[in-house]
Amino acid sequence: MASPVESRRPELRKDSVTNRWVIFSPARAKRPSDFQSKSPAPSSSDPPQTCPFCIGQEHHCAPEIFRFPPQNSDWKVRVIQNLYPALSRDKDLDSSASLSSDSLVWGCLLDGYGFHDVIIESPVHSVHLSDLIPEDVAQVLLAYKKRILQLAGDDSIKYVQVFKNHGASAGASMTHSHSQMMGLPVIPPSVSTRLDSMKQYFNQTGKCSICHVPTKDLLVDESVHFISVVPYAASFPFELWIVPRDHVSHFHELDQEKAVDLGGLLKVTLMKMSLQLNKPPFNFMIHTSPLQASESDSAYSHWFLQIVPQLSGVGGFELGTGCYINPVFPEDAAKIMREVNIS
Amino acid sequence: MASPVESRRPELRKDSVTNRWVIFSPARAKRPSDFQSKSPAPSSSDPPQTCPFCIGQEHHCAPEIFRFPPQNSDWKVRVIQNLYPALSRDKDLDSSASLSSDSLVWGCLLDGYGFHDVIIESPVHSVHLSDLIPEDVAQVLLAYKKRILQLAGDDSIKYVQVFKNHGASAGASMTHSHSQMMGLPVIPPSVSTRLDSMKQYFNQTGKCSICHVPTKDLLVDESVHFISVVPYAASFPFELWIVPRDHVSHFHELDQEKAVDLGGLLKVTLMKMSLQLNKPPFNFMIHTSPLQASESDSAYSHWFLQIVPQLSGVGGFELGTGCYINPVFPEDAAKIMREVNIS
Ligand SMILES: Nc1ncnc2c1ncn2[C@@H]1O[C@H](COP(=O)(O)OP(=O)(O)O[C@H]2O[C@H](CO)[C@@H](O)[C@H](O)[C@H]2O)[C@@H](O)[C@H]1O
Ligand SMILES: Nc1ncnc2c1ncn2[C@@H]1O[C@H](COP(=O)(O)OP(=O)(O)O[C@H]2O[C@H](CO)[C@@H](O)[C@H](O)[C@H]2O)[C@@H](O)[C@H]1O
Repeated sequence: MASPVESRRPELRKDSVTNRWVIFSPARAKRPSDFQSKSPAPSSSDPPQTCPFCIGQEHHCAPEIFRFPPQNSDWKVRVIQNLYPALSRDKDLDSSASLSSDSLVWGCLLDGYGFHDVIIESPVHSVHLSDLIPEDVAQVLLAYKKRILQLAGDDSIKYVQVFKNHGASAGASMTHSHSQMMGLPVIPPSVSTRLDSMKQYFNQTGKCSICHVPTKDLLVDESVHFISVVPYAASFPFELWIVPRDHVSHFHELDQEKAVDLGGLLKVTLMKMSLQLNKPPFNFMIHTSPLQASESDSAYSHWFLQIVPQLSGVGGFELGTGCYINPVFPEDAAKIMREVNIS
Repeated sequence: MASPVESRRPELRKDSVTNRWVIFSPARAKRPSDFQSKSPAPSSSDPPQTCPFCIGQEHHCAPEIFRFPPQNSDWKVRVIQNLYPALSRDKDLDSSASLSSDSLVWGCLLDGYGFHDVIIESPVHSVHLSDLIPEDVAQVLLAYKKRILQLAGDDSIKYVQVFKNHGASAGASMTHSHSQMMGLPVIPPSVSTRLDSMKQYFNQTGKCSICHVPTKDLLVDESVHFISVVPYAASFPFELWIVPRDHVSHFHELDQEKAVDLGGLLKVTLMKMSLQLNKPPFNFMIHTSPLQASESDSAYSHWFLQIVPQLSGVGGFELGTGCYINPVFPEDAAKIMREVNIS
């Protein structure tokens, strides 16, 4: 534990987007530049005997929804149904609750209707998202967009969560590069909290909180249409947000040109994390607006992509309070990430 | 994946305490009775060369706050300062923010003043909490109480979170049986959300949501003063709550007799989990009321203890949405836990 860090006092910070207190606690950590994953995700691996996501193994997968390029056996991206979906894509015909009525009064219950899909990001087992050229990362992003637009046609679906798990300690059970998306019949709690918080900031300042995300000490990289920053009250060490410069509410408004630009910045960001943090397992999540958002909501809602490297687990404190302890100050993480040289 | 489970539809449930949607998804899991930890916490282990928490090693610890019995070298429980505290117990004298002013406007910042203590639950390295007799578990609970009452004397401390990490995948870095508590200068987000939700239930029904926690299908065990239940919308498989029968807002109102009774039920519950789930790593958290809660808040606030075995990690979906996917229906978990025979 190094002295310049130890001498700094802990701080609590709360930002205008997540509206959650985070404890920044330098005494809990080694020096920020020494952070390294202890369980790196394999950078490339031989495919297991039969990986259902590999090209040629399509018959081992749940049904395909579409592929890019369409009708081509030499595909680059496939969107398929999840074989073990958390929600059911069949509408319920005769719902019969198994719980007694006193329980039902105590809580709320909804049928588990919804969609759970998998996006296979590459035909080749050993190729990860950050290995792709920006144009091919863009194909993955545009596959998300296409599928979100399909789900938006179903009035029962309120929100679509796109997410990626990479590496076992980030939850990934499959090693072949993939992401997932779920079309949900409710607006999830973190989304409501975020939108409420962004609305409050807008009402108080007249500004969109994401358009005005602090960059002075926290900027990492820039592209034509996007910037990457460490958020002001990052919950996790080296958490990063990629934010569109233009005020746009929904991810699915992304066009081809911006998709390639975002693909490039995402690739660079993942490569930097991999190099600096020893190939950490990671998650990314696209935070967008509800499908049926009103015209007035669009003034304060602005989509962004959150990347969280998994460097340390959580414990009872976080489970109990919803408050995170982050040993790395955001401005220190940003400085380190800015200076990583991937060329 | 067994057929009786697979035939059931997924459900979304939200309860009146946490107010969070949880997806119950039978297709995501093996049979509920097959749940077993894949990384069991060692049930007993030789002490490492020098475990600072072992009796005789007190000089390797941060300063002691108190012990039971007092002034006795043959102690049963010690409460000590955390050597790497997340918060600083010294008041800040000259605070100087390192962030530029545009960042400060965007969020909130507070000095990291607060308390972070460790409770050593047994003098002997190989003895876990569930190995203790109920009277000795009670000593641990009464140590929490005593320390909370001390912290309540500090007006800057708004909430005390007591929590336990057991086993590496529950976050524990020390194997010697211990728990922790943090005295916080803010009311954490999950606590506010819980209190708001309980208040809403009270305003709508005139009842305390915890006094009326559903037990018909969800009860596991009972003691004189407490019950254990699986919550209606459990976020995690085999999550359990221990709830006082009497309507009491603050954990620290616990008296000696109730402490022994709770000690017995906690011991039984941990032993059942250990047997049924293969010694899973676990966390427990005491959910109490803010220290300066008003008289009117006490009508709807009721403390309880939440136990979460760590059986599966989380991924990007949970990080992004705050919504959990639980493969085990609460009524199935309750039935299994009721029937575990520890005698
Ligand atoms: N042949 C096939 N055809 C189609 N689909 C197939 C398939 N074989 C496997 N799949 C699906 O592919 C998905 C791969 O997903 P990941 O590896 O990212 O994590 P998983 O969803 O298992 O759980 C992680 O992410 C979720 C959501 O965040 C967490 O709940 C969980 O704890 C964490 O481990 C799985 O959902 C699986 O059902
Ligand atoms: N000689 C000594 N004297 C006094 N104290 C000593 C000591 N040696 C060690 N300690 C303290 O003892 C505590 C033991 O705690 P745990 O093993 O339960 O988890 P820890 O707090 O490390 O982190 C887990 O819990 C926190 C809070 O939930 C999460 O943030 C984190 O990710 C997770 O790993 C540590 O906090 C440590 O600082």
